[in-house]
Amino acid sequence: MTHAFDEALSLQPLGDDRFGGRPHPDYANMVGPFGGISAAQMLQAVMIHPDRLGDPVSVTVNFCAAVADAPFELHARAVRTNRSTQHWIVEMHQADGVVMSATVVTAVRRDTWADVEHPMPAVPAAASVPVVRRENAMTWLGRYEMRVVDGHFPPAWDGSEQADSRTRLWVRDHPPRPLDASSLVALCDVFFPRIWRRRATPAPIGTVSMTVYLHADAARLRAVGDAPLLGQAQAQCFRGGFFDQTGQVWSADGDLLASTHQVVYFKG
Amino acid sequence: MTHAFDEALSLQPLGDDRFGGRPHPDYANMVGPFGGISAAQMLQAVMIHPDRLGDPVSVTVNFCAAVADAPFELHARAVRTNRSTQHWIVEMHQADGVVMSATVVTAVRRDTWADVEHPMPAVPAAASVPVVRRENAMTWLGRYEMRVVDGHFPPAWDGSEQADSRTRLWVRDHPPRPLDASSLVALCDVFFPRIWRRRATPAPIGTVSMTVYLHADAARLRAVGDAPLLGQAQAQCFRGGFFDQTGQVWSADGDLLASTHQVVYFKG
Repeated sequence: MTHAFDEALSLQPLGDDRFGGRPHPDYANMVGPFGGISAAQMLQAVMIHPDRLGDPVSVTVNFCAAVADAPFELHARAVRTNRSTQHWIVEMHQADGVVMSATVVTAVRRDTWADVEHPMPAVPAAASVPVVRRENAMTWLGRYEMRVVDGHFPPAWDGSEQADSRTRLWVRDHPPRPLDASSLVALCDVFFPRIWRRRATPAPIGTVSMTVYLHADAARLRAVGDAPLLGQAQAQCFRGGFFDQTGQVWSADGDLLASTHQVVYFKG
Repeated sequence: MTHAFDEALSLQPLGDDRFGGRPHPDYANMVGPFGGISAAQMLQAVMIHPDRLGDPVSVTVNFCAAVADAPFELHARAVRTNRSTQHWIVEMHQADGVVMSATVVTAVRRDTWADVEHPMPAVPAAASVPVVRRENAMTWLGRYEMRVVDGHFPPAWDGSEQADSRTRLWVRDHPPRPLDASSLVALCDVFFPRIWRRRATPAPIGTVSMTVYLHADAARLRAVGDAPLLGQAQAQCFRGGFFDQTGQVWSADGDLLASTHQVVYFKG
């Protein structure tokens, strides 16, 4: 049986840097699809492009407008190919115009000195943390197995202000699926909005731009398999209708696989 | 007398979303211009575009190839204009092809609940920290007044490994110039490479992609004037020829003006 993630990422090459696809019902959000799956679809146009050089190092995805539940066309253009790095611009078009834009950097990595300077925090092992059970939740949440270590979803919308917005959780695809660059990028968007965590109010929100730096090549990601990853996310500033979020994703043995940042619109 | 920064940002509108410019000799780096000034030039094409809506919220600049000391043409295209947000794709073209790409989000901000969750660290006031004097340094360094609080440039290339890569410094334009979005974006790139800080070896490096989230509108930046800002930068992971850097820039009274992230190629 094909995993819903792979179904969602199944794009049809249309020639001339163009690829056809559509939102997958299993990743539906409140309005439109889960942002992480749209980001992964944008990256996938690069991953299956015949001209691709190396693995993703940097992915920035901009959420320009709501993605409609309708077919889309991706345009993925290599604007620069160097000896070991390559720069891409990707656009998602729907009837309505451009709904997403992205830049992607791919590269052939070399072995160098290496160090994880931001260590994984000491947290209970995934197996000892209960899986979050949700009822009447948005569909895409069913596509992830989450075990919240700290910084839970507000138990009530009671407006009780919290001292910080941090969340730490173990997370993987559900059903489990071996990790790759596309699923890692999608997973970087699973954190619920930091404004909800901080203020316990259901403020309307929308991610405006998300960046993922990948610190592992395809082989290293493959070696992680389908084990749970530790994700951490926290806001740094809320002001003028926007807040940022900075985060990290580690493998269970403490490798930093991705650092991820986003800026989010909020109301109220 | 016009400030060198304003000279560098003086672009010539060529019609059809195109703007002409060239690197400024006062911002010369080892090879080509200082990345921060090129990033500011990319943003400037949006700032002076007649269709611009609001102030910058998010800027991602990709350094695709070395910028030659020669004229360039910027193409700045609004791919999506919503009621209060706007999405741009910018490219810098030289004889050689595309040398930089960028996405920019601008927005009309509204007054909302606000909080700086990442507080400014307790550091000595700018006036009490000596200005760094450099001899035979790269030209662009003369365009910034820097007062390093901790995490100094390695005193010698002796390969002594440091426990962390963090640097904190007070910084402003030199000569002083009132802050705006463009100068803030340039300033987010002033931190010397974290691999040098960490390993005290002059590894060849090059920023691949930089993102700046701006947490202040034009009026708030104007109010900061030309006072020194506190900048902080630290790497999170080094591996496979790339490392990331995450940073913050505060006004002296503790407002977080920008959070900034980049991924950097390194050799060795």
